[in-house]
Amino acid sequence: MNYKLVFRLLGRLLLMEAALMVPSLAVALIFREGDVMAFVYTILLTAACGAAPSLLLHPDREDLTAKDGMAVAGLSWVILSFFGALPFVFSGAIPHMADAYFEAGSGFSTTGSTILPEIESLPRGVLFWRSFTHWIGGMGVLIFTLAVLPRLSGRTSHLARAESPGPTFTKLMPKMGDTAKVLYALYIALTAIEALCLLLAGMNLYDALIHAFGTAGTGGFSNYNTSIAAFHSPLIEWIIAVFMMLFGVNFAMYHHLLHKDKDSILHNEELWVYLAIVAGATLLITVSILPQAGGFFPALRAAFFQVNAITSTTGFSTADFNVWPLFAKSILMILLCLGACAGSTAGGFKLSRVILLVKSSFRDLRHTLQPRKVAVVRMEGKPVNESTLSQVGVYLFLWLVLAVAGTILLSFETDDLVTAGTAALTCLSNVGPGLNGVGPAENFSFFSAPAKLLLSFLMLAGRLEIYPILLLFSPNVWKKN
Amino acid sequence: MNYKLVFRLLGRLLLMEAALMVPSLAVALIFREGDVMAFVYTILLTAACGAAPSLLLHPDREDLTAKDGMAVAGLSWVILSFFGALPFVFSGAIPHMADAYFEAGSGFSTTGSTILPEIESLPRGVLFWRSFTHWIGGMGVLIFTLAVLPRLSGRTSHLARAESPGPTFTKLMPKMGDTAKVLYALYIALTAIEALCLLLAGMNLYDALIHAFGTAGTGGFSNYNTSIAAFHSPLIEWIIAVFMMLFGVNFAMYHHLLHKDKDSILHNEELWVYLAIVAGATLLITVSILPQAGGFFPALRAAFFQVNAITSTTGFSTADFNVWPLFAKSILMILLCLGACAGSTAGGFKLSRVILLVKSSFRDLRHTLQPRKVAVVRMEGKPVNESTLSQVGVYLFLWLVLAVAGTILLSFETDDLVTAGTAALTCLSNVGPGLNGVGPAENFSFFSAPAKLLLSFLMLAGRLEIYPILLLFSPNVWKKN
Repeated sequence: MNYKLVFRLLGRLLLMEAALMVPSLAVALIFREGDVMAFVYTILLTAACGAAPSLLLHPDREDLTAKDGMAVAGLSWVILSFFGALPFVFSGAIPHMADAYFEAGSGFSTTGSTILPEIESLPRGVLFWRSFTHWIGGMGVLIFTLAVLPRLSGRTSHLARAESPGPTFTKLMPKMGDTAKVLYALYIALTAIEALCLLLAGMNLYDALIHAFGTAGTGGFSNYNTSIAAFHSPLIEWIIAVFMMLFGVNFAMYHHLLHKDKDSILHNEELWVYLAIVAGATLLITVSILPQAGGFFPALRAAFFQVNAITSTTGFSTADFNVWPLFAKSILMILLCLGACAGSTAGGFKLSRVILLVKSSFRDLRHTLQPRKVAVVRMEGKPVNESTLSQVGVYLFLWLVLAVAGTILLSFETDDLVTAGTAALTCLSNVGPGLNGVGPAENFSFFSAPAKLLLSFLMLAGRLEIYPILLLFSPNVWKKN
Repeated sequence: MNYKLVFRLLGRLLLMEAALMVPSLAVALIFREGDVMAFVYTILLTAACGAAPSLLLHPDREDLTAKDGMAVAGLSWVILSFFGALPFVFSGAIPHMADAYFEAGSGFSTTGSTILPEIESLPRGVLFWRSFTHWIGGMGVLIFTLAVLPRLSGRTSHLARAESPGPTFTKLMPKMGDTAKVLYALYIALTAIEALCLLLAGMNLYDALIHAFGTAGTGGFSNYNTSIAAFHSPLIEWIIAVFMMLFGVNFAMYHHLLHKDKDSILHNEELWVYLAIVAGATLLITVSILPQAGGFFPALRAAFFQVNAITSTTGFSTADFNVWPLFAKSILMILLCLGACAGSTAGGFKLSRVILLVKSSFRDLRHTLQPRKVAVVRMEGKPVNESTLSQVGVYLFLWLVLAVAGTILLSFETDDLVTAGTAALTCLSNVGPGLNGVGPAENFSFFSAPAKLLLSFLMLAGRLEIYPILLLFSPNVWKKN
């Protein structure tokens, strides 16, 4: 890799992170709950560590190769999580670094798993930062950098591709920087609308922002121990459920909507599959939990909320679904793996990949019957080439390998396979809660420090769709060129 | 499909099945434990149902298309299991048809899951048939038909391909009938050698045959309630463990061995990966169960036995691995999914597919770094084409879909996710035992009749590698041509 270029870029990202901590410092200054200096120290340290390489390094070549893009994507998330963990440690809110790293990684990767058994006693500046990492991580910090630093120029598509989720990256504008601007504008607008709705529904401004960040990034951190259930407000539950669903949609759809491009929306197969899955799962779970939910509408609300919380990989909760029937839990665990649409802030395997696999399956079954007939898989009318199809299969395999390897390693820490398995899955899918020992009423604090680092690794791997994180282990990437 | 041709073939297969029941009738006549007439009735009924279509139908065209081959493969296993279940019902050993169908399907598919809580009280003719179904199913009844009825001629490769496991079918001889003869000769020879070893180790002839059938087909039915543990003989455990390992090897290797073709064996990547996995897993599990096994050698023996029982998808047991540490159980559950070598009698996903996916993964990771470089995946030195790679990904997906759908449906019957999940997996992989409620000391009798049929479906789908069974649901297959 081009060390000078990569590290100068990483330096700039740290400067960006320091700037992004300023709102949290402001919140800390307003509430003055003992966390002001933690932000001051972190901002100074982060800015200093960022300024050095970005000022001192002068790369000979300015063009970013695919390899450099992967290295920047992988390294930046690892480093951002490290510096993002410092306010937790410096404020004493989370004294141990492994715990703080887990929490920051969970924030940036928009997972929302927590090691905190008790949240409400934490200073509000720290809680604001904790939720703000979701918002930063949701759309991606590299995309943000592209939006505000257009002079990066060169082949920046490598950067966007490495960070942006999904098998395809929709270029909405000819220039990558402009696409990034459009995406962030939509992101900010949707977040603001949700915060406004929550305010109108009776939340205070602080809670409204915290939960809008958690929804927009599809993260799931709340500032209440019982998550959304703390508000005892069906209206708030409906608002958050609907916005979780909206943030699971490919952002390109909102761009099409603004440009009245009805055809692009109507022909987007993934969108309709997504909505059908949400509707179908809500129905099945409503029926399944009917006997214990006390009526049809409470059951429907609980089911709709939890289906969207899991499908969009947000992970908020209004009920302890650990006590639901196994059928309902099994459906949630499948949704947890699938995730939502590519090009959204959601994690998981992504529905467009599932659609490609389903279409390939039918193609291969037909091919078995008529071996001489050549059949092409189409997506939105366009033929998909074979190497994309084989890449989707490989992605499924790598995803499974990470999930299974994670489960095996976690099986040293618990004697319950469901706890180990759903902990690995929920982190890899960036959802948040799992079942049994890591259910919505539990937390991840009982794991050892190495297990927490392993789970952090899974979260970042899930957020960056595996490749950039796995490639950090390749000697080839570290070879100087 | 060509109805006349397909049904005439199915008729012949039933005649074959009737003939294959004669040894069990002989055993019943020797022991006279009330099951003689059950076999007489079944043989007469099966022969009659087979004779009618094979005598009356005169197809206009004799050439078997790919579609017909798939239909014959799928239908034959469903029908064979039905007639194979009749001796259980007629003898009163298993009065309910759903139970008997499960047991026969488990036998033919070489799964070895049982609904019998108590085995030893059953008549010995019935138990002989129960284990003999493993032996028939292991190498495949269509391959058997090809071996003994060479006049089928035509494009019989469709039949062999549809029934033989693995992504590739090794044609050892130019003619498919000759390949089938070689395979069966090797199969009979290896079974006989094992039976001899077991006799020498102190088993009586009946027990030796039963366990040789169970090992050879990688099935796992025993005639003792406690499976191999009933013999209290380390020597017998070692013999069976080694033969389980041997029957997990691609049979082509034995052909190469007889023809002193050292190169083909040394360059067979799957074989060496298989042996490495067995060795590695044995080592890890030995260490894991050391504290509870009472010494290194008992631990090694238990680990080596159970690793081979699961990897070869046989499913015999010498210990209740349900009480082993979760780490050891997790490793067993991975081995359960992987299975052994293609071209063996073992079930599971097959190692050659795993190897292709691992190689594709490395290729795709490299491709991410150097998008312009074209890289080819090679197996045993030969390039693998892209459509094969995408097919392996699709197979993985279909396999997962069946496993997950099975788990969901079974979650209506139990409130334990591990019981539901491992029941679906162990049937799909043709192993036999799972964990918790379907652990090695338990059985499948508590499931409802529909659940038993679902599990039978998974077993047959696993044995035939999904396609022939799934295609039975395609209207296209049933269209007359």
